Amino acid sequence: MNQARRFPLNERLLHDCHLLAELPFCSLLLMNNALLPWFILVPDVEVVEIHELSIPQQHQLLEEINLISRFVQQHFTTEKLNVAAIGNIVRQLHIHIVGRHSSDVCWPGVVWGVKQRQAYDQSRLDTISRQLEAFRPVDIRVHQTVAKV
Amino acid sequence: MNQARRFPLNERLLHDCHLLAELPFCSLLLMNNALLPWFILVPDVEVVEIHELSIPQQHQLLEEINLISRFVQQHFTTEKLNVAAIGNIVRQLHIHIVGRHSSDVCWPGVVWGVKQRQAYDQSRLDTISRQLEAFRPVDIRVHQTVAKV
Repeated sequence: MNQARRFPLNERLLHDCHLLAELPFCSLLLMNNALLPWFILVPDVEVVEIHELSIPQQHQLLEEINLISRFVQQHFTTEKLNVAAIGNIVRQLHIHIVGRHSSDVCWPGVVWGVKQRQAYDQSRLDTISRQLEAFRPVDIRVHQTVAKV
Repeated sequence: MNQARRFPLNERLLHDCHLLAELPFCSLLLMNNALLPWFILVPDVEVVEIHELSIPQQHQLLEEINLISRFVQQHFTTEKLNVAAIGNIVRQLHIHIVGRHSSDVCWPGVVWGVKQRQAYDQSRLDTISRQLEAFRPVDIRVHQTVAKV
């Protein structure tokens, strides 16, 4: 668990995702669905909309979105990124970054509401954690992840 | 039509939306569905992903997203904003800014893929254009809009 956050991660996000890493401004989660490379950035703030962040916070958020966008493009078969702040159900501000491909489970539709799920196994989780460490070791503190059964 | 853009607006966006205004970096469209306050910003660029923009371009895009976010919150009944770059079908980079409310047509689901539609009538379009002019007249050049039949 993340000791450093001022604002604890939402329980539903923690239930649905793996907590992968800490970036300077955001926690990085991985939706527990191996059918899609679906990452979520959760800034350590109380506000619920991007425009309510200060300008420096917005720029830092963008920087971390850029970083994870590049990570997804480099490590997954991706034709298009979907980058979105929705939050109709979970109000804690969080940004989805999803690598999409024309052969994926819900193309060309969006990922939200998709029923197909496949939990990550430990070996795939370990691979993603290693890739993340290697991608940008200085700015990312990668957590230990354990497959959810 | 927008004479000033270097990269013409995608035909499908023009078909589905009203071209409302020009901001310094983006064209502002309104999805022709009066059931939802659904705005779209289209930066005048060729790249398809946000992280492929230069940092100054990203910051300018954020500024215009902030502006339209505030406009939607002030002029529509909004509990939550949905801000998203999807682009699985239309690859021209465009950012959706949608005002959502728990009584709207697809709450708490997302708006993409929703079948319910209601074209804007002229009087509602005129009202939105006037609100936009009044909101931030200096930075926005508002177009004439004509209801689509």
